Amino acid sequence: MTDRFPRPYRIAVAPSGFKESLSAAQAAASIAEGLLRVVPDAGIDLIPLVDGGEGTAAALAAATGGRLVRLTATGPVGEPVGTHLALLGPGTAVVEMAAVAGLSLVPPDRRDPVRTTTYGAGELIRAALDSGARRILVGCGDSGTSDGGAGALQALGARLLDAEGRELGRGGGELLHLDRIDTGGLDPRLARAEILVACNPHNVLCGERGVARVFGPQRGATQAQVERLSAGLERWAAVLTRDVLRAPCPLRRSSGTDGVPSGAAWLGGRFEAGHGPGDGGGVPDLRLSPGTGASGGLGAGLAAVGGRLLPRFEVLLGHLDLDARLAAADLVVTAEGALDAQTPHGKIPAEVAHRAKRAGRPVLALAGTLGHGAHEVRAVGVDAYSSIVPAPVPLREALGRAGEFLADAAERAIRMILLGTRLPSPLAQTAGTQRPSSVR
Amino acid sequence: MTDRFPRPYRIAVAPSGFKESLSAAQAAASIAEGLLRVVPDAGIDLIPLVDGGEGTAAALAAATGGRLVRLTATGPVGEPVGTHLALLGPGTAVVEMAAVAGLSLVPPDRRDPVRTTTYGAGELIRAALDSGARRILVGCGDSGTSDGGAGALQALGARLLDAEGRELGRGGGELLHLDRIDTGGLDPRLARAEILVACNPHNVLCGERGVARVFGPQRGATQAQVERLSAGLERWAAVLTRDVLRAPCPLRRSSGTDGVPSGAAWLGGRFEAGHGPGDGGGVPDLRLSPGTGASGGLGAGLAAVGGRLLPRFEVLLGHLDLDARLAAADLVVTAEGALDAQTPHGKIPAEVAHRAKRAGRPVLALAGTLGHGAHEVRAVGVDAYSSIVPAPVPLREALGRAGEFLADAAERAIRMILLGTRLPSPLAQTAGTQRPSSVR
Repeated sequence: MTDRFPRPYRIAVAPSGFKESLSAAQAAASIAEGLLRVVPDAGIDLIPLVDGGEGTAAALAAATGGRLVRLTATGPVGEPVGTHLALLGPGTAVVEMAAVAGLSLVPPDRRDPVRTTTYGAGELIRAALDSGARRILVGCGDSGTSDGGAGALQALGARLLDAEGRELGRGGGELLHLDRIDTGGLDPRLARAEILVACNPHNVLCGERGVARVFGPQRGATQAQVERLSAGLERWAAVLTRDVLRAPCPLRRSSGTDGVPSGAAWLGGRFEAGHGPGDGGGVPDLRLSPGTGASGGLGAGLAAVGGRLLPRFEVLLGHLDLDARLAAADLVVTAEGALDAQTPHGKIPAEVAHRAKRAGRPVLALAGTLGHGAHEVRAVGVDAYSSIVPAPVPLREALGRAGEFLADAAERAIRMILLGTRLPSPLAQTAGTQRPSSVR
Repeated sequence: MTDRFPRPYRIAVAPSGFKESLSAAQAAASIAEGLLRVVPDAGIDLIPLVDGGEGTAAALAAATGGRLVRLTATGPVGEPVGTHLALLGPGTAVVEMAAVAGLSLVPPDRRDPVRTTTYGAGELIRAALDSGARRILVGCGDSGTSDGGAGALQALGARLLDAEGRELGRGGGELLHLDRIDTGGLDPRLARAEILVACNPHNVLCGERGVARVFGPQRGATQAQVERLSAGLERWAAVLTRDVLRAPCPLRRSSGTDGVPSGAAWLGGRFEAGHGPGDGGGVPDLRLSPGTGASGGLGAGLAAVGGRLLPRFEVLLGHLDLDARLAAADLVVTAEGALDAQTPHGKIPAEVAHRAKRAGRPVLALAGTLGHGAHEVRAVGVDAYSSIVPAPVPLREALGRAGEFLADAAERAIRMILLGTRLPSPLAQTAGTQRPSSVR
């Protein structure tokens, strides 16, 4: 910090939404409310963050002055649902898969991941193309499907056929019967559009960490269904690779990169899916490449038809100038519904902490639930964290009062932090460094 | 702080026990465990505190090298219970009323505050006298009774009679029928013993803040029972005053004050109950004087037979050298099962914070439940506070895992405090004071 004090604190408030209770914008507002009770002069920078899942289209529209377009499409269990697209500016649309095939759209008594479909996601992509979009951001996350994106490709005109030439039905459970894919009817506009798929690179389609094994159970799959889905997705990857990726197909195109947010690349720098003359790197591995498992495998399906699988935060956060805003803060506060062993694997608090650490800024994380492995968030740069729950309460009450709980927890946390400003530096505790002699 | 840093932090850990889950010693150990995970070099001063309720006798015996004596006495619902006395040293005994008439000894299906009795507390006082004690500390708190101490006086030899000269049964509900008290059989040793009743001065026997109205409902009383108890305790105060306090009685004695912890006086400095030539102040008001409502009115009953109602922390904490130990700390951590609007009214965290503030020390409070009005603890000197609950959990789970939760919460809290040591002083935030120019 090179500023001269006194001046009011600058606090960057960069939370995720809290699932089933608060949008990211609501969470940020609640945190700010609690902080301002204690440091009313603080400069609060509200940076609500989305990860591609629920609320992504609305948040990006709000952040960029875009608009939402309402429409009806096929939901995850095959019935029509009201959904939306975001149009951000000339030729750019956002398709949020959770808005048409999300887990919250699957009635609890119909949680059959063998049958749920991403068909509606394909319909939204077509609607985006109809609107004139040349660049489509596809937000993944919070999906209720495990069909490898098969439904989306069906909606975009691909025909999935069994050995007798009959079209498959919908859902990942059908993929075991897949014999070949007829791409003759694929929407030709896909070849001219840029499809940027905002993925969590930790999600892969197949193998031990594949989407069926990792997410199948939380989407209601039995062990037998997990095995059936796993085998179906293996089949899907093999046939997609043979009939779409390696075949002469109608989607060859130049894959221009103009306008992609700078720095967009896999976190590991290993892979960007896509095909055509521009990728110069042979055929990607649809089974295990980063992001192929995004949204129940929608990543793999879209990669096969030219979509570029990109680290979601590069796609989604690039326009927020996040790094500079974090660097300008004295303190960074992030939050999510839960902190647990999954958090370091690409969740918003981990991304915020990672970026804040690069700027040397202290990070506080608040969560509704501190789950198993929550302490692992320290390794990705969270200095301190706390639950927002003030007492033993049922989950239903915690969800209903999340905004109040979050504001109160932010107030309590900043009081603890301020208490710390009255103690000598901890550097003296651990490293034995000298404190300035004028400070006692 | 006049010390030169670097040196390890000194942290005073001064919690209450957590009702139904942790003794004060266990709570202190859990907090220390969590703190030491973060500041392993810190000097932790463990100061488990008791307030007169459950665990008081054992804690005082442990702190002073005394011993517990096991015996059987009459429990709150009239059946024999195993209980204990503490003998602290030559001639000093501790009677913990909760150990013989506590709420936890009342089976949930027999929570009838109209019938529960302090008879066993009187038996314990007699047992203390039998042991040769000349000074008896009576710990109040966590009682399951509302009989005004009538049972205790019966056990000590008083006869409570109705208009037809029949002895009353036990329980506060009987007091409506009280006509007169025959003190002829009172244990004569009471006149020579010093009975120091460790009370919460906020508890009074009668009126709107009287024990029946404030505590009756939590002891299972219906509204009708509350009214009956209130009226009975009014009758009790009137007859006690007439037949015991104002009457020539066998308990006139000199009320020496030698050995009373220095500073012992009502927090408000208004009242010390007792009678005899030494008190020089006429007859105390058994209805509304501070502490008369302690333990369902046991305070009033004992005050009538010469007991001195004293602020509990003066009686209980005097030997701990608490003020000096808090003043030696960089940080004071206290804790209790709940922080709420009652906390400032004489609970342990409030007492600790009050004393820490006098020494200018920062205070953190941890609690299982942050209840209604928890923020009021700031007014008594708590700088920051937090719940120990890491997620929405049922009360039963929180009680069962209280030690783990408390240790983890202490760890999280000290991390937040350490985060604060990296920020500029909050004085600059609120008062505009200059920071030393060498600190940026």
